[in-house]
Amino acid sequence: MVLNDEQLAQFDREGWLFMPELFSPGEVAVLNRAARRIFAMDREEVVREKDGTTARTAFAAQNYDEACRRLGRHPRLVGPVRQILGGDVYMHQFKINAKAAFNGDVWQWHQDYGTWARDDEMPEPRAMNIALFLEDVTEFNGALMFIPRSHKGGVIEAGHDLQTTSYPLWTIDNATIARLVEEGGLIAPRGKAGSAMLFHSNLVHGSPSNMSPWDRTIVYLSLCHVDNHIRRFKRAEWIAHRDFTPIEALEDDCLMALVDEIAAAE
Amino acid sequence: MVLNDEQLAQFDREGWLFMPELFSPGEVAVLNRAARRIFAMDREEVVREKDGTTARTAFAAQNYDEACRRLGRHPRLVGPVRQILGGDVYMHQFKINAKAAFNGDVWQWHQDYGTWARDDEMPEPRAMNIALFLEDVTEFNGALMFIPRSHKGGVIEAGHDLQTTSYPLWTIDNATIARLVEEGGLIAPRGKAGSAMLFHSNLVHGSPSNMSPWDRTIVYLSLCHVDNHIRRFKRAEWIAHRDFTPIEALEDDCLMALVDEIAAAE
Repeated sequence: MVLNDEQLAQFDREGWLFMPELFSPGEVAVLNRAARRIFAMDREEVVREKDGTTARTAFAAQNYDEACRRLGRHPRLVGPVRQILGGDVYMHQFKINAKAAFNGDVWQWHQDYGTWARDDEMPEPRAMNIALFLEDVTEFNGALMFIPRSHKGGVIEAGHDLQTTSYPLWTIDNATIARLVEEGGLIAPRGKAGSAMLFHSNLVHGSPSNMSPWDRTIVYLSLCHVDNHIRRFKRAEWIAHRDFTPIEALEDDCLMALVDEIAAAE
Repeated sequence: MVLNDEQLAQFDREGWLFMPELFSPGEVAVLNRAARRIFAMDREEVVREKDGTTARTAFAAQNYDEACRRLGRHPRLVGPVRQILGGDVYMHQFKINAKAAFNGDVWQWHQDYGTWARDDEMPEPRAMNIALFLEDVTEFNGALMFIPRSHKGGVIEAGHDLQTTSYPLWTIDNATIARLVEEGGLIAPRGKAGSAMLFHSNLVHGSPSNMSPWDRTIVYLSLCHVDNHIRRFKRAEWIAHRDFTPIEALEDDCLMALVDEIAAAE
């Protein structure tokens, strides 16, 4: 899994790179079962929507679920990010966003690095997300929207929104969003389950609510160059990790191997 | 404006008919200016979102705005509905739904006739909406979603939702929506400003919130066969009209003529 020059140029210019069907249906099935298990857990890392029951996001599952542990070290995700960031990376955050059928709430317009800088004192935007779709993302189930090229202006002023959803977020005002969209347009990448979206940590994005009968689960690995680790430990360890050990990628077949291991153990 | 056999067959089978660019950009501009004027008015017919400021929907503007008066008698809207309902129609409701940029809230899953039957005692579903887009409807700005063929099962059980938005609505439960979508799928017609969507009054539909920087204003004419007028006057007259006079359509150029008249008067 090595990005070519054209991909690297697009990422630099537009701030994103979409990789259709990077994972197979079999691998996705393993991860989707893991996500259902995790969302059913009663633990502080699983944040609920305002309704108090629907899972909104589950943090740090690489620490308590074997499929997620392997995904967090998967060469198809870690490789491209290592390549772009130019060296060893550690896991700053790992989360599964549910955007559940009928009840999945919005994520307001924001930059990830905005939060990492303000809350965690991450020195530079030498960190990024790679997002893996666990279901088909369609026009109906709350696709992520990104403002291309919005990563070029650095960290944008933001307000800490504690009201709109159950999860606090540094969000960008409407006038700024309108200006950025005027300049860069808007995209909402869709694709089959198993597709991945890699995006710059300053790329402005958000997602609408999901009122369709289809879940739209996405796993996010937020990977950070080891030299660029956070300096402030304000947020819970399971939200902003404090283990800066370089990730050693596993074998490419690590997820399907898990299926065999489980079958052999039964 | 006469629907052909194929269109009539599709409407009967699927419950909807999309008519791309039925109105010209010039006509749309006249109506869009009217909508901005109306949303800025401080009157009870203009319902605000939960934020108390953003316009959500404006009722009965055909009674206080000349462009809307003409639109409410426009042959390109009234004609197809007369044809389908088989005779004279009156205006049961006229509304402009704003779905404003950034702040436009959802319309939950519902049937229009469900409300007209329960609240207004309209005897039969011999009434329907024709909806006119005043801006381009895209994947970003909260397109209406319809469940094809869901009009075939009559009135579906519903609960009166007074909580979710600023406007009360008879809404259908998630399990039923999931079943209907399993059977009929889901569509979200998109198109240029000036396009129109005609749909059966029992066709289940809803629309997500709009977090894009683009408004998505739609005018709805709810036309009812004159024999089928409502029997109960529970809701305000400006929501559920009580004037059952048959609509006499104006000339096809009535909207552009208004531009000339205004210019001549200045």
